[in-house]
Amino acid sequence: MKPWNQVTIIGVGLIGGSLGLALKKAGLARTVVGVGHRQSSLDEARQCGAADRTTLDAADGIRQSDLVVLATPVGRFGAALREVAPTVVIDVGSTKAAVVPAMESLMPDGCAFVGCHPIAGSEQRGIAHARADLFDGALCVVTPTARTPHNALDRVVQTWARLGMTVRLLGPDEHDRLLAEVSHLPHVVAAALVRAVGAGAESLAGPGWADTTRVASGDAPLWRDILMSNAAEVADAIDKFQGVLGEFASALRRGDAARIESLLAEAKARRDKRVRHKPV
Amino acid sequence: MKPWNQVTIIGVGLIGGSLGLALKKAGLARTVVGVGHRQSSLDEARQCGAADRTTLDAADGIRQSDLVVLATPVGRFGAALREVAPTVVIDVGSTKAAVVPAMESLMPDGCAFVGCHPIAGSEQRGIAHARADLFDGALCVVTPTARTPHNALDRVVQTWARLGMTVRLLGPDEHDRLLAEVSHLPHVVAAALVRAVGAGAESLAGPGWADTTRVASGDAPLWRDILMSNAAEVADAIDKFQGVLGEFASALRRGDAARIESLLAEAKARRDKRVRHKPV
Repeated sequence: MKPWNQVTIIGVGLIGGSLGLALKKAGLARTVVGVGHRQSSLDEARQCGAADRTTLDAADGIRQSDLVVLATPVGRFGAALREVAPTVVIDVGSTKAAVVPAMESLMPDGCAFVGCHPIAGSEQRGIAHARADLFDGALCVVTPTARTPHNALDRVVQTWARLGMTVRLLGPDEHDRLLAEVSHLPHVVAAALVRAVGAGAESLAGPGWADTTRVASGDAPLWRDILMSNAAEVADAIDKFQGVLGEFASALRRGDAARIESLLAEAKARRDKRVRHKPV
Repeated sequence: MKPWNQVTIIGVGLIGGSLGLALKKAGLARTVVGVGHRQSSLDEARQCGAADRTTLDAADGIRQSDLVVLATPVGRFGAALREVAPTVVIDVGSTKAAVVPAMESLMPDGCAFVGCHPIAGSEQRGIAHARADLFDGALCVVTPTARTPHNALDRVVQTWARLGMTVRLLGPDEHDRLLAEVSHLPHVVAAALVRAVGAGAESLAGPGWADTTRVASGDAPLWRDILMSNAAEVADAIDKFQGVLGEFASALRRGDAARIESLLAEAKARRDKRVRHKPV
């Protein structure tokens, strides 16, 4: 594919910074412009090669860009987008049902919005953790609608694929329903597991507890936004999950070892099919 | 401390094999004898240095040992212990309230039982994954009772400490109650999370899901035994956990973003105090 001439990344943290590094490394962007609201992060992004130039002024950063990546909450940049229309705007956020129609309605003429959710990253944040291979081998969900121009969609899909990602297309609502189960519910569960542990037990926590609760170390305001923007689906997923937990509790209470083993064996088989064992 | 003259490890898998390697490396055992019921595992244990000699015959393996480590379900070895009494017998199992009194009543005269739970390991099993540093830096809970001789307790505690473990003493019942919260509940939750995910969502699972569900890849019969031997405490921990999950669901349903943020922030703070961030 033809490289983007100028890509503006708004928000050069873990995801935005890694994307800048990856686009440059893959030769998919001639110039990367980083936009943020903290000069120190912008300086770090330039120093590590995630951006060729940086600016605190969104309109200045977007001018003449053919691709704008929203890697930060969108609020303060809406005006800049209307002022200086790029060709394609994408986001990298974790929920889509609310964001995609809102962004589509914000787009100026001739400017296409394509919702994207690269499922990569960790509980860490910030440009200091950015790396060019963050996306390699991971999954990216792209969420087109009836309003998405085919050429913009195609170019965005090709870009993620060239960064080593497996791309799947889902509607914004379907994305949120499925992500509630595999991402938002596990986040709630991890936080609830930390909360359910008494002070006396906490000091006995081993590596199993550390892994099971890892995502609970994610940024609280960021995850508040994710959960609130998908609240109904997440609450439904919690209900369904409570039903599964209830099966375990009642099998334990009636001493049904065979049922416990079959529940565990089925979970192990499903997980082992999906995830390869991590080296110890 | 004076090294053990001969240590017999019954069950040379991940834990037993790692213990053999660690005891030899630390100079804490002159001879390590491995006992098992599969010749191939015993051969592997001898080849990797986890045991100096091995045997399929428990009575033969225990003869003249001053320490016997039960690193396998105890059933078939009770007779051998009565036949050839060692000085000290320990186990390395994950529950204690049922096992400790049962083992104490099995001990012949002059032979002390000390319940031990080194909180180390992973979802992997078998001698192939054994390593000398498995215990280093981890926690070991030792569960003495009124019947535990002080000299045996002291020697066992010193042994774990010399392998780099932090040793804590808890009563068997207290051990099981606390482990229900930090280990058995997370295991049930991980398995339930796998079960709660629909087939359509599974393929979207990212690194967060993989970590949150990691322990669900543990051996199903092994974990059936752990959960069943602590069934009442685990069922109570599930109930308590359901209550915490309910707080999240109701905050989501009433749109209470502030409450969601405070639940998440509190969990993050507690976890970050306990576990250092894992490198990405």
